[in-house]
Amino acid sequence: MRYSQLFGKSIRSVSHDVRSRGHELLIRGGFIRESGAGRFYMLPLGYRVQENVCRIIQEEMNRAGCQQMLAPILHPHELWAETRRTESVSFELMQVKDRSDRQFVLGGTAEEMIVALVRQFSLSERDLPFCIYQFSTKFRDELRARGGLLRAREFLMKDGYSFHTSREDFERFYEQMGKTYLRIFERLGLEAHLVLSGNGYMGGDYAHELIVEHEVGESRYLVSEDGTYAAHEDVATFEREIMNSEEALTDVKIVHAERGASIEDGVKHYGAPAWRQIKSLIYVTDTGEKILVCLRGDLDISEDKLLRAMGCATLRLATEQEISEAGTVAGFISPLKRSIKAIGDLSLTSVRNFITGANEWQRDARNVNYGRDFSVDVLADIALAQDGHRCVGSRSILRERRGVEVGNIFQLGTWYSDRMQGANFTNSQGGRTPYYMGCYGIGIGRTIATIAEIHNDQVGLKWPHSVGPFSTHLIQLGSDAAVCSLAGEMYQSLIAKGEQVLFDDRNVSAGVKFSDADLLGIADRIIVSARLSAAGLVEHQHYRSDTKRELRIGEL
Amino acid sequence: MRYSQLFGKSIRSVSHDVRSRGHELLIRGGFIRESGAGRFYMLPLGYRVQENVCRIIQEEMNRAGCQQMLAPILHPHELWAETRRTESVSFELMQVKDRSDRQFVLGGTAEEMIVALVRQFSLSERDLPFCIYQFSTKFRDELRARGGLLRAREFLMKDGYSFHTSREDFERFYEQMGKTYLRIFERLGLEAHLVLSGNGYMGGDYAHELIVEHEVGESRYLVSEDGTYAAHEDVATFEREIMNSEEALTDVKIVHAERGASIEDGVKHYGAPAWRQIKSLIYVTDTGEKILVCLRGDLDISEDKLLRAMGCATLRLATEQEISEAGTVAGFISPLKRSIKAIGDLSLTSVRNFITGANEWQRDARNVNYGRDFSVDVLADIALAQDGHRCVGSRSILRERRGVEVGNIFQLGTWYSDRMQGANFTNSQGGRTPYYMGCYGIGIGRTIATIAEIHNDQVGLKWPHSVGPFSTHLIQLGSDAAVCSLAGEMYQSLIAKGEQVLFDDRNVSAGVKFSDADLLGIADRIIVSARLSAAGLVEHQHYRSDTKRELRIGEL
Repeated sequence: MRYSQLFGKSIRSVSHDVRSRGHELLIRGGFIRESGAGRFYMLPLGYRVQENVCRIIQEEMNRAGCQQMLAPILHPHELWAETRRTESVSFELMQVKDRSDRQFVLGGTAEEMIVALVRQFSLSERDLPFCIYQFSTKFRDELRARGGLLRAREFLMKDGYSFHTSREDFERFYEQMGKTYLRIFERLGLEAHLVLSGNGYMGGDYAHELIVEHEVGESRYLVSEDGTYAAHEDVATFEREIMNSEEALTDVKIVHAERGASIEDGVKHYGAPAWRQIKSLIYVTDTGEKILVCLRGDLDISEDKLLRAMGCATLRLATEQEISEAGTVAGFISPLKRSIKAIGDLSLTSVRNFITGANEWQRDARNVNYGRDFSVDVLADIALAQDGHRCVGSRSILRERRGVEVGNIFQLGTWYSDRMQGANFTNSQGGRTPYYMGCYGIGIGRTIATIAEIHNDQVGLKWPHSVGPFSTHLIQLGSDAAVCSLAGEMYQSLIAKGEQVLFDDRNVSAGVKFSDADLLGIADRIIVSARLSAAGLVEHQHYRSDTKRELRIGEL
Repeated sequence: MRYSQLFGKSIRSVSHDVRSRGHELLIRGGFIRESGAGRFYMLPLGYRVQENVCRIIQEEMNRAGCQQMLAPILHPHELWAETRRTESVSFELMQVKDRSDRQFVLGGTAEEMIVALVRQFSLSERDLPFCIYQFSTKFRDELRARGGLLRAREFLMKDGYSFHTSREDFERFYEQMGKTYLRIFERLGLEAHLVLSGNGYMGGDYAHELIVEHEVGESRYLVSEDGTYAAHEDVATFEREIMNSEEALTDVKIVHAERGASIEDGVKHYGAPAWRQIKSLIYVTDTGEKILVCLRGDLDISEDKLLRAMGCATLRLATEQEISEAGTVAGFISPLKRSIKAIGDLSLTSVRNFITGANEWQRDARNVNYGRDFSVDVLADIALAQDGHRCVGSRSILRERRGVEVGNIFQLGTWYSDRMQGANFTNSQGGRTPYYMGCYGIGIGRTIATIAEIHNDQVGLKWPHSVGPFSTHLIQLGSDAAVCSLAGEMYQSLIAKGEQVLFDDRNVSAGVKFSDADLLGIADRIIVSARLSAAGLVEHQHYRSDTKRELRIGEL
């Protein structure tokens, strides 16, 4: 490709909305352009990167025995009604009617569509297992779309779906897909980590995110220092340290407490650490029920864990009015003498002689002990793991990380096949068994954005060789006949060798050409100049490294 | 790929809705499946065919210097409002709102989206020409979707858009794209013809359809016997034969005519050929105006030509009530003493002494002559060309054909750049000139369907080698250890040679395997059987030809 003919050349500056370095470079280099917020054009340069990324994913998926196919983008609404995901999906679904008033969902994920296809075939045990996948445009009606390709409203996704006769067969495949994903990201120049995560609106029991550590990411996760454990904050478990097991149990004492409503206020008032207090909050479920939630004062609630522990789809904090209806008062809520259902964190058993509110303004109860003085209806893991906590079992210290979720793999089990009629196969006894399923996603735009965030320096991008838009950037310096002719010859001979060449043949200064080359970040550069070409030499440079090698033309 | 592991195996029968042979075979073979009417899954086999088709198109587009990119599927509604195509597009646009109430169009074509991208760059003369293209899903809310992939509501399309500084530069490129398209279809095993056509809702002045002749097609076109002219019926011109130039002009005579209302009734009543009569109809335009339309009695009106001649978007025939308001009566409408605007076909000057109605029930006028006794406000080409008519100029006889429109190329001129603000480049004088544009489409699903319609016989498909899902169909007959081992070895060695192999390793009868191979239609078959393998031989067969060659295993 001659740069003079390329559509989508580099530009000098971008709008102030652009907050991340990688996104800025993608726009400035002419890789992508925004249509509306969260919707992007892939320009010819960006499209070439996308093709390379997709090809690598395709090769590895095929190597794992998966089969590529393609489902329609518009999903009949009745399929989503079968699983009732129209109600549970957290991103808002875009919906559209055709002129005959048939309603469709603009697919955000395609589980229903794929199961609806597979159940059309009367499969028997010997037709399983298989995994089918596609690259297709997905839609999520994000309220805010920032960060460019990292969080788009419309994006290309590789989504795969596997079907198995049994849990055991699935587990073997799930492990294989984890390895396939790690290899994919390695080939793309990304160090991804398999991080245990929640299934959210996808259904199923467990899942892993593939996360690349980077500050622009929105995934907060915890990794044990010994490297044996990595989990998303939504699911990360941790050891509740026993704080004061030596302390003698003493009697409950109701005291007047002229303190503010927060845990910090209690710390100041009592001169005792936060863990000494019980943090009590009242939540309201989607059915309107009020729930008392208690945990140790130094911990925070994980609303994701809480939702799962309670099995409800949404939760909100109670208003002051609702707190008062529950017979208590904000800042002094207490698990003692409660009138509503209570759920408590495992940490409630790790402290002797807690301080807690006493359901009245500026009244506290001291020396309160779980089991002896109060209990909850459900004792569960509902606290957020934090940097410095310890791993359950190994006691290795957990460290907090931030990163970009570039892919994910989900156990779905029979979540879909139980809900969708006819989603089963004939087993060896002639009966019908629901498929045991998994699904596997990679966000293509987000992966490209992550590569751009990771692989850049102060002047521009530095694409890994495997994904760069071209393998060689050929730069012609000067325009005298000998240089033009040599550069043209080099261009043709590199192409003949199967190289993907971007040939900067423009009539602009060397400075402009080098600064564009720095910005575009193609791995190999070949420079044809008047000085060297007279001696039958060209220069080769890796990115914009300081060392240039002079090469005889024949040596290339 | 082992057939035993393939998702989407062949089935024996299809629903009665399936009307075309190719569509039936695509479903039976496991290439495609319907989601809802007009929306299809590409199964692994079909997806492989689609990949081959896209790759060939991509190679030829790139060879013509075009650059691949990708635009979002959701188009901001305001772009379509800029060109007012929301009002003129004949397929109903699907529209969708996001949660912030922004309205989008589900793209049916992408001219506005592409111009909206290109105008973001401040292009100057030296940045042109260029052509960008994409493969992307398109939506058309067809009222009826029949014929499978031939007329889908959601389909993959290759759409390209070229930008030029001048008409001359565009015309050179347009001719090149015509040739590129013919080469693409030739490589896909289709004999396509460049057929002059109308631009319809696309804007611009002229266009060509790429049509493959076949009875399942919906395009009716005319080709001259000398091969120099091919045009879609909507635009095909033809010579108006002079019928009776020797006849002396005689005086108008008003006569009582006890005849029915049709031209045929007039033929019977007068014993004169249909061309002797004037066919007169009243149409109502989109603004409610009544228009008298006249042509020679042996011809039919082309509503497409009529719309173009009148420059309106829609037209309908007048009701009896409206005809009577126009001061005349159905069956006896006359261009004599008319009170409304009239448009006439060129054929009105080709007959002396016409017979026409006289605006009263059972009253006719005889010996009516254009120019002497009546005239029209516009004399234009508004008649439908028919088999047997003659080409204008060459007088070669026109023959009617039916075919599938697999692609099209459009001159757009400045239709979009005039309507969309800022769609221009800096010319050499420093002023701004609107881009001169063209666009170029290929329907991928329709192309696949057409290949399937053309390349089949009574037992199954016969894919051209370039597009078939696999290059080799390896069939293992029997399951004794020697055969299994040889077949397995063959499979590995063919793959190592870079062949795409479908290996029928199932434990089913030879009859089932051959009938599936016949159905799937892969070009090369290799058969491994006990009888021959003992002698170190396998059989090679081209499709299911009667001749099988026996080959030493090493000879492959």
